Order: sequence, then C-alpha cells, then structure tokens
Amino acid sequence: MPRSLWGWGDAGQALELEPLARRVRPFFGELEVENEAGLRVPKPRVGIPSELAAFASSEERDRAAHCWGKGYPDRLRGFRGDFSAAPDFVARPRDEAEVSSVLEIAEREELCVVPFGGGSSVVRGVECVLGPKQRGAVSMDLERLDRVLEIDDVSRAARIQAGVFGPALEQQLGAFTLRHFPQSFEYSTLGGWIVTRAGGHFATVTTHIDELVESVRMLTPRGLWQTRRLPATGAGPDAVRLVCGSEGTLGVVTEAWMRIRKRPQHRAGASVHFEDWNQAVAATRAVAQSGLNPANCRLLDPAEVMVNEVAPDGSAVLVLGFESDEYDVQPWLERALKLCAAGRVEQKAAAAWRESFLKGPYLQDAMIRLGVLADTFETACTWSAFPKLYEAVTEALREHAMLSCRFTHVYPDGPAPYFTFITNAKKGGELEQWAELKQRATDAVLNAGGTVTHHHAVGRTHKDGWSRERPEPYARALGAMKRELDPAGVLNPGVLL
Amino acid sequence: MPRSLWGWGDAGQALELEPLARRVRPFFGELEVENEAGLRVPKPRVGIPSELAAFASSEERDRAAHCWGKGYPDRLRGFRGDFSAAPDFVARPRDEAEVSSVLEIAEREELCVVPFGGGSSVVRGVECVLGPKQRGAVSMDLERLDRVLEIDDVSRAARIQAGVFGPALEQQLGAFTLRHFPQSFEYSTLGGWIVTRAGGHFATVTTHIDELVESVRMLTPRGLWQTRRLPATGAGPDAVRLVCGSEGTLGVVTEAWMRIRKRPQHRAGASVHFEDWNQAVAATRAVAQSGLNPANCRLLDPAEVMVNEVAPDGSAVLVLGFESDEYDVQPWLERALKLCAAGRVEQKAAAAWRESFLKGPYLQDAMIRLGVLADTFETACTWSAFPKLYEAVTEALREHAMLSCRFTHVYPDGPAPYFTFITNAKKGGELEQWAELKQRATDAVLNAGGTVTHHHAVGRTHKDGWSRERPEPYARALGAMKRELDPAGVLNPGVLL
Repeated sequence: MPRSLWGWGDAGQALELEPLARRVRPFFGELEVENEAGLRVPKPRVGIPSELAAFASSEERDRAAHCWGKGYPDRLRGFRGDFSAAPDFVARPRDEAEVSSVLEIAEREELCVVPFGGGSSVVRGVECVLGPKQRGAVSMDLERLDRVLEIDDVSRAARIQAGVFGPALEQQLGAFTLRHFPQSFEYSTLGGWIVTRAGGHFATVTTHIDELVESVRMLTPRGLWQTRRLPATGAGPDAVRLVCGSEGTLGVVTEAWMRIRKRPQHRAGASVHFEDWNQAVAATRAVAQSGLNPANCRLLDPAEVMVNEVAPDGSAVLVLGFESDEYDVQPWLERALKLCAAGRVEQKAAAAWRESFLKGPYLQDAMIRLGVLADTFETACTWSAFPKLYEAVTEALREHAMLSCRFTHVYPDGPAPYFTFITNAKKGGELEQWAELKQRATDAVLNAGGTVTHHHAVGRTHKDGWSRERPEPYARALGAMKRELDPAGVLNPGVLL
Repeated sequence: MPRSLWGWGDAGQALELEPLARRVRPFFGELEVENEAGLRVPKPRVGIPSELAAFASSEERDRAAHCWGKGYPDRLRGFRGDFSAAPDFVARPRDEAEVSSVLEIAEREELCVVPFGGGSSVVRGVECVLGPKQRGAVSMDLERLDRVLEIDDVSRAARIQAGVFGPALEQQLGAFTLRHFPQSFEYSTLGGWIVTRAGGHFATVTTHIDELVESVRMLTPRGLWQTRRLPATGAGPDAVRLVCGSEGTLGVVTEAWMRIRKRPQHRAGASVHFEDWNQAVAATRAVAQSGLNPANCRLLDPAEVMVNEVAPDGSAVLVLGFESDEYDVQPWLERALKLCAAGRVEQKAAAAWRESFLKGPYLQDAMIRLGVLADTFETACTWSAFPKLYEAVTEALREHAMLSCRFTHVYPDGPAPYFTFITNAKKGGELEQWAELKQRATDAVLNAGGTVTHHHAVGRTHKDGWSRERPEPYARALGAMKRELDPAGVLNPGVLL
C-alpha cells in the first residue's frame, strides 16, 4: 500500500474503526466516522526551472505529499483535503551537485527551499512558507541519498547519506546498528534526525542523535560545512552541535559519519509496578542517578498505563531494560531493581507497552476519523521542578482533555516527561481547539521551568514558546549565523527564528 | 608561599634541581642551572578609569601575574623576566554589575578585555593582545566570584560562580563532587574550564566539562546569555555548547549550574602491562567499545611508562579504574580485564603514575631552569587513524626530542592521545626551537586526521592549525556571532578567529 497523503504511514495499516470506537466509547461517547475528503491542491505559482527539470516534479499528489508534516493540525488539514501550503514543485537531487544546484537556482529565482526527509515533523518543520519577496517554494526531498557508503568496523562508525530511512539504514549496516529508534523510525531519515535533534532508543546517555554524530557534511548556500571524523575535540564551540537542531535553516545535511555498535546479544529487562506515583518517580530518579545507565528506563503514569492497557490496576509502571553485545547484563538489572524496592517486579508489561508504542501514530489517524483530537507534547526539567510541572500541566488540561504522562528519557538531573492528551474534537473548530490546548500546555511547561521540546524540535509550532525560553543574545547569534550563511533567506524561512 | 610569577604554581613546591639533573643526565648530559631574571614590565599605556578604580589594580607584580599563561613559551619568557604583554591594569569585579561595567567602559575607552580565571592556559588564551584601534588592555580576573551559591540535592546540581578554583569548589560542595579534575585543578577555575572545554577526570562519557554544564550564565556586551536549567533539550542548536569553547570571545561566564554527584564510595582498579603496543591499543579499544565506561582508562606507551618510572621493562601499561557511590564495581573491573587477556595484571602502577601526573607541571618549571625544553600536546582521532597518527608524530619529532604518549580519554570511535616531548633547549633560541617542534607536531597530527586539541583549547597558539581543520562556513558563522554580540571587538581579540 502507498503512504497515506495525510495519515501517518502505510495506508494499509490503518486501524479498524469499529472496534476502536467501541473501546473508547466509555470515554468519548458515540463516535461518527468521517471520510477523507478529496484533494484540493492550489496551482503552482512557478514552473520548474530548466536546470532542475531532470530531478523535479510538479505532479499534484507529489506536491500534496510534501505539503504538511504529521502533527495533529497537519493531519486534520490533509484529511479534510486542504493542501493549501503545497510546494510549487518537489526536487529529488541524486547527488550533492544537484543539492547545490537547487540552492543556487532557488536563490536566483527567489524561491524558498524546504529540506524534506520523511516528512514526520510534528512542529510544522517541513511546511513551505514563503519568506518576504519569495515567489514560490521547492520541497527538497532527499530520498535518493539513501546509501550507507562506508563502514569503519575498527572505529565503529559508518558514512551514511542523509536521505536514508530508518529500516533501510539498519538493513545496510549488517552486523552493526545505529540503534536509533524514534517512534517515527519507519518514516524518518538520518538527516531529519540530525537537524531536529531526534530522541532515540536509549533512555540514558546517548539519548539524542547528537551523541551519535561523529562528523557531518552540510551544504550551505555559502559553502561546504564538513567536520572532521573525530571522537571528540576541544577546539571552539562544537561544529557538529551547531548543525544538530539547525532544522534546515543553515544548510542541507547530505551525509554524516555515525557512531554504530554491534547488535546487542544480551538483554535483561523487567517492569516494576508502583502503587504510589511519587515513589515511582523517586525510584526512577535513583536509577537515573545510579550510573547504571539502562538502555530503557520509561516510567508510565497511571493514566498512561491504563490508556495503553499495560495494567488495569491504577499503578505506575517503570519499564527497565539493559543490553550489551559483550556481556550478560542481568547483574546490571539486579542492581537497578534494588533501587526500586518500593515496587513490585513483573515481566509482561514491557511487551504490551512496546506494541502500543509502535501503533501510536496509526491510532492518532483513526482518532481523527472518529472525531477525537489526540496529540502529544514532551519536555524536560530538573527532578526538583518535576512535581510542580506535572501538577501544572495536569491543572492546565484537566477540564479539557484526558491526559497521561510517561518519561521517555531520564538524566541524572531530571526526566523528559512526554504527555498525551485526548478529547472529543469540536467539529469544524478543531484547529482552534488544538491551538488552545497546545497554548495551555506550553504555558504550563514553560512557567514550571521546562523546555518547549525535548526531541520534537522547534519548527514553527514552538517558535513563540522557544523565544520565551532561550537567551536573547543566543537568538541574535543564531540570526547572525543565518544571515551569514544564507543571506537570501532561501532555507526554510520562518523555522526557528 | 605565593604563586610563582612565571612557573606553574606554589613557588614553595618547586622541585629540587640537583637530584633531577642527576636523574636526567643520561638523556640530556650535564645541565647548568639558570636563575630567574628580574621583572621587566612595561609602563601602563592607559590609567584605570575612575568607574573601575574600586576594584582594579595597576600594581606591577599584579600586571606581571596576568601577562602570560603556562605554556612553555609563556614560562620561558616569564623566567627570563619578559612581561612585555602585561595588561595595563587588572580588574577584579565583585559582582555581575562590575563585570558589565568593565565591558561597557572598555568599549567606551577602546580597551580590550581578557577574562582571566586561573591563568593556566597553554595556548596563549589569557595574553593581552590589542585589537585594531585599541589603546590598552584589561585583564578581568574573576577570582572574587568564588562561591557555590546553591545546591539542589534532589536534581544533583549546584549553582557555582565562575571564578572559583578547583579545590575551593570541591570543598564547598560537601558531600557532593563535580569530579572534574584536570591536571590544572589547583590553578584553574570553573569558568575557565567551561570556556576552554577542559578535559577532566573521567576517561569516558563525561570526558569534557561540557557534559557537566546544566545551564550557563554569560554576560555579553549585548546582553545576558542565561540558559534554563534543563537536563536536556531538543530546541535549536545547543545554547550551552555554544558557550563551551568560546574562550572568552563572546562574553564572560559568571555562573553555571553544574551536574554534581555523590562522592564515590566504591572503587576498583588495576594496571595491565602489555609487551606489545598494538595489543595494548587493541585491548584499550575493546574496553572503550564495551559499554563498561570506566572512570579511568589511560594507556601509557613504553616511553611514557619509562619516563614516569611506572615500570622499567619497556611494556605499555593500561591504567583502569571504576568507581560508584552506589554499588561494588569489582564486577565491572573483572569484565574489563577479560578484554585485556593479552596483558598481565598488576596493582602498583596506577599509584606511581598518579604521583607523576600531579608533579608534571612543576617538573616542566624545573626543566626550564635546567635548560631542558619540555612540553605536551594532545589530540583525538579515530581508532582506524591512530596507528598512522602515532607513527607520523613519532617520525616528525624523532630526531628532535624524546617523545612519549598516553591516552588520557577514550571513546568508542577513537582515543585521545597526549604526547610529551623533551629535549635540550638551544639557549637563546628556545622560542624558535619550540615553535618548530610545535609546527612539526601540528602538521603531523592534522595530516593524519587528528584535531589540534582534545582539551587544551585553541587560543592563539592553535589558531592556524585549527583554521586547517574546521569548515570554512563554520568559521564564518562564528565570526558573524562575534560581530553581533561584541561589535567593538572588546573581548579577547585574536583568540579563536
């Protein structure tokens, strides 16, 4: 089956609506199924420049498929047939020369260029919004840069093109693995992960893609930003970390040397059920501060446990996992479990939760069809700030939606809480309803000391919130960098700044 | 005893020269002791502006003490009485208002400001060099900002002023520790560590100070760069990492929230002797890639072993250490030793080496008095690049100096080799001799794929080398940031860019 134009992924994996409607009826009442509307895609404002014709398309479905990301408002608009922000054409460069060519010609023709990986942005990061004086928009889809080019098995690193999707990347790595498994894994790319600082599989230490980048290669409108392959350096502000999080505003990442590892041979895991939420948080903090560095350390609050059908009893559940390609990790798990003495150890919860995790994005599609608004937001804060943040977020959304929380990642100094909210959509007013809920969530998070995003990037959605969080001289510094490297403002206008 | 004006630290800790001369006679022949020359400090070019008078000094010894760092050329110049780059006055702000005041008045009076922590830079990072159109120089010594202001024991973080020295910092942390122990620990400050990306005690994972910074507070000429206290964020290029490595060119760091931990209660360590260097490197790599993350993992090559009197038998020695405040780490050590089966395990080497490590900087002082040129440089490279890099560095210096190498830090994708070179100084031509050796080393490192520095920063010494290593658009981006935040070029002109 082809990928849905508005929904998460493979259209064939869409959930059956009737059983779902029955299941959620206790919460949302009788639900009516709405059908997908026909495509409404505006005519292109500009034609394809002749130099790009060999690798560009202005086919209507192609343009529609590059119109939105996968946030709730994106999917809703697409579901209703609204593809009003479609790019004028889609370029699919086959090599770096063609990437450069797109940047040059866009500058000449006064077009904006929006780099596009898997299109799974939930923060309006791939949407084409024209800058001042621009006449049209190009979505630059990097899917043809999809190869693992080189593996250095001594240093455990691989040179990988930016446009490769998760599954193809893992398949090409053979005995090695990047082990970066965001929820979007199937529908996101290496380049997308790097520029959005994606959060991956590991709950501790190497939590973001940032730590896995050995060197990066980015084409900017003013030259090649290629860093050396180095395990570390102390020279100047980190040139890799400046690319991570740049969200396509400074250049187009074409390749990176990534740190890889052998596939794990040893695993040990358990779930710990806590009757008391505060005890669960305290145990999770103890594990996070222990130095044991579990691969998985996800705490689900009672609502999250219930929604995901992990357990029916109102307990909070900590899912713990250790892994290694070298040695038995059972002793590590046992150490960690000693820190969780306030809870009750079980085995089955982890599997149930994992299943639910992978189906999550498809569930959101089905909810849209049933007239239910479901979305998530994530943050990070210190352990000392967490209790008030949790309370503030709950307070802000309590009367407006069902809310649940899990920790996706944990650090010695704080957790990364990830919230899901679900409520009956107000038909015809969903976007306003969503914007209000999002604003309430953002205000609560920021006022309680959190960040607008732990791993979903800033894009356009979080721009205002981020401007309240970041230092003003830092914003000025980023702006100065942007003007230096992209003086015509070709790249992803309106994102970040 | 007061701190030496030219030597490393406490003048009372200077080594006795006679026994040292006897010990090194087999390598360097008969050595003659030279005595320290009298101070030659130029007259100030400008007076102290009245607004700064309450916390500034133009006393001659004070100016001399803020003239040089502690690199070989610095110490040699100081030893010979040359304090020609002395600042016109030294400001010691007592609070942030006074820091801002120095920046403002320097801009008005056309002075440069060089932030000064412990003055232990080995890359000419604290030397006062005027920018174009500047009339004089202020060394801004932050020693009065020397307090731990707050400890959050739940989140394990502390708010600390930038001017505190290592020992005072540790003392104020009580039951906690930052556990950042660079060789310069006694004579360097938190702020200095942050802006130079100092390498610390941990051989793996948290190798640089960067990983320990939760949030940072930097006064720039165009406003306050204060980041939130966050365990992590995915929003934009990392605002903390932009400060790390900025070397006083963008602003003055006044405080940071630092990640702290409980003092370790459990330790396990061993030394492994290898007859074959390549086997030693392979075993070290296996440990680095194992995920065991030892606190200490330092490999000494046969020359380093001999020079430091760790063992007399021409073997290479891997010093391994694990530690925890939570649990017995003996099982961790045993796992690591399984990966070192090609070597022979001993206990005593570690202690001998540690002693030698702490005395190192005092040894360099004594060598200067004996007419011996001794210096170090460090780098990082991938494991696959290392054999050629080691060979190239050896080849470049073989005929010019005795050379030894250790790994100070290790990563899954490569080691951080640290080289020491020692040779008879050419009296009267030491600076040229040093410059030639340094150039040979830098060329060899860069040509073999290394970085100009793993943890000694760029300063002025590595500027040319770094310009060969870094991407050009990155340099342009840094320059644009600098012009935005410090348009008058007040801060540390000539460093980095």
